[in-house]
Amino acid sequence: MRIEDSKVRNSTISKNRWLVSRSSDSWLKQAICNPMDILLDHAHCERKAAGVALQLMFRYAAEQGLSEVLSPLVREELEHFEMVLEILKSRGGEMKLLPAPPYGELLAKNIRKPEPERMLDSFLVSGLIEARSHERMSLLAIHSNDFELRNLYSHLLKSEAKHFGIYWKLSEERFDKDQITIRLRELAKVESQILSKLHPYPRMHS
Amino acid sequence: MRIEDSKVRNSTISKNRWLVSRSSDSWLKQAICNPMDILLDHAHCERKAAGVALQLMFRYAAEQGLSEVLSPLVREELEHFEMVLEILKSRGGEMKLLPAPPYGELLAKNIRKPEPERMLDSFLVSGLIEARSHERMSLLAIHSNDFELRNLYSHLLKSEAKHFGIYWKLSEERFDKDQITIRLRELAKVESQILSKLHPYPRMHS
Repeated sequence: MRIEDSKVRNSTISKNRWLVSRSSDSWLKQAICNPMDILLDHAHCERKAAGVALQLMFRYAAEQGLSEVLSPLVREELEHFEMVLEILKSRGGEMKLLPAPPYGELLAKNIRKPEPERMLDSFLVSGLIEARSHERMSLLAIHSNDFELRNLYSHLLKSEAKHFGIYWKLSEERFDKDQITIRLRELAKVESQILSKLHPYPRMHS
Repeated sequence: MRIEDSKVRNSTISKNRWLVSRSSDSWLKQAICNPMDILLDHAHCERKAAGVALQLMFRYAAEQGLSEVLSPLVREELEHFEMVLEILKSRGGEMKLLPAPPYGELLAKNIRKPEPERMLDSFLVSGLIEARSHERMSLLAIHSNDFELRNLYSHLLKSEAKHFGIYWKLSEERFDKDQITIRLRELAKVESQILSKLHPYPRMHS
């Protein structure tokens, strides 16, 4: 089974509907000047995105229509992980530990504990991270001074756009539209706030 | 990146080198008589196998040459999950919770806590489960009275054989051959012992 473009496209909202702020020029400059750190961090991000989606498949194992879309998403995140790792290695890098910026952890703290709020927040937080990744990869696809990296990010973008569409669709099928919109706006403000100060080390979400 | 047959084939040991006992006729009869339970349990098994491999990618994130082979394995387990779920649904079933047999948990209890023993045992336990799945799917591919299911299991078998080869290779690259052989023999005896009494409910590992 593949992620079907048409199914997702119908309910995909643009990333502008997710994000309330644009990435800063200082982030872009930091990222462009440190391509190896960004590649390594990116590999970790793809693996973590796969981990979060698979975790949702475990937590909601009996939820109809969830595994069917999250399983292909996990596979696609891992395909990207493998691609990024290959480029990293071709440039003399290797998979090694890298302290994560506070972004993911701070966002996850906003996921409410009781169900079904936990489910909605989990979808929206994952969607926000995907939307931010998409926005930042779009910037790198245009502004990186490295031909191979521009190609890499351009290629990944096409799938990344579908990913936040998937989280939107999962939300839309299970929750009231107003409830989603209000909560998304709250979480998007938190997301923007976290990124308002540039993290000292170059990361996809610094 | 795909799982490369040639790389794995070279260091693949047959499942007979993993398992110290054959599955019983009573298991085969139980499985053939309860195809829907087996399909549902099988879907859970594929998802869990993906989960365990991804967990190893997290635990050993900086281990060179590990993610490169486990990431395609996770993707393949999930492809199988999706295939099994599709057949289950086409027959009126659905993804729902199903109490697991004690097999996986009892085996996992034998994984030693300190490193590097934990790593070796994790590889061998995963390899043993893959080898047992392969053996049981081979039986179903021959003896099931359902044409579609015989086809399904025949198809899955080809990849499943590579999976225990991957866990063997991961062990072989990091541990002494004698150490692997002795520990595998111990764990294989435990595995066989767990299955020596048929679990009352039909499962892939009952």
